[in-house]
Amino acid sequence: MGLALDEARAAAAHGDVPVGAVAVVDGAVVARRHNERERLGDPTAHAELLALRDAAGAAGAGAGGSGGWRLDAVTLVVTLEPCPMCAGALVAGRVGRLVFGAPDLKAGACGSLYNLCADPRLNHELPVVAGVRAAECAAVLADFFTSLRLRD
Amino acid sequence: MGLALDEARAAAAHGDVPVGAVAVVDGAVVARRHNERERLGDPTAHAELLALRDAAGAAGAGAGGSGGWRLDAVTLVVTLEPCPMCAGALVAGRVGRLVFGAPDLKAGACGSLYNLCADPRLNHELPVVAGVRAAECAAVLADFFTSLRLRD
Repeated sequence: MGLALDEARAAAAHGDVPVGAVAVVDGAVVARRHNERERLGDPTAHAELLALRDAAGAAGAGAGGSGGWRLDAVTLVVTLEPCPMCAGALVAGRVGRLVFGAPDLKAGACGSLYNLCADPRLNHELPVVAGVRAAECAAVLADFFTSLRLRD
Repeated sequence: MGLALDEARAAAAHGDVPVGAVAVVDGAVVARRHNERERLGDPTAHAELLALRDAAGAAGAGAGGSGGWRLDAVTLVVTLEPCPMCAGALVAGRVGRLVFGAPDLKAGACGSLYNLCADPRLNHELPVVAGVRAAECAAVLADFFTSLRLRD
C-alpha cells in the first residue's frame, strides 16, 4: 500500500484526484499506476483500470496469447475503494484479490454502494480486504480537495 | 446500430466475442470499436470502453483540456447490454445516452442484473434505450458460439 500511496501522490502532482493502484503477482510488482483522468482527458483512466491493463500486458498475452487476459494470479492494491467501472474490471479480468484503503461511500462498488466482487450471478468472485492504511489513503484525498478549495 | 453490428462481426473475424459499439455526437460517428479482449490480451478491451476512450480523444481533451473527458454529448450505441465495467464507464464518463441491442441476462448492468445507469446515488444518470435490433444483435453472438462449438 505504500507504493500505491506514492502513486496517489503522483496523481495529485498533475492535478488528478489522488488514487493509486499497484498490481502484485507472487510478491512482485507487475504494474503501478495512478489516476490520469484529467491529464489524459480520458474518463476510463482510473488507476485500477490502467494497472490492470498493464498487468495484462506484463502477463505476456497479446496476439495469439492463450487467455493471458485472465489475471487470477494478480492482487490489486488500491488506495480507494473501486467504483463500479473498476470493480467491474476486476470481475471481467478474473483478478485474484483486491486490497483497498479508504472506503468510497459515494461511489464504492466493493462494499459501499455495491459489492460487485461478491456477486455469485457474475462469472467471477474475488476476496476483498478493506481498510488497509485507510486513514492515510483518505488523508491524501482530503488534502487534495482542501488545496483545491483554498486555490479557488 | 448497423455500424455497431458491422463492428461486432469484425470482432468475430479475429476470434473475439462479437460485440460492437459506436459513439455518436450530433448524428456524427466519433468512434467505432469492437471487442478486442482476446486479440489484445486485455480484459478491459470491451467494445464500449474502447469506443468511450476514442470518443474522449476525439473530443480533443488531452493535456490541459477543460474537462473533455465528460461525454455528455455522446450517445453510445452497442450491440449487447453493457457489463458492470462498461456501464460503470458510462457513468464515470457522464455519457449522454445509451442505446443497446440484445439484453445480457448473465452479466448485463443496464437493466438485467444491475441498473447502474439509473442509480441516483451515483453522480450521473443517463437514459437507456434497450432492444434496438435485438434479434440481429443476439444472432451474431449465437452464430459465433455455435461456430466455436462446431470447431471443438
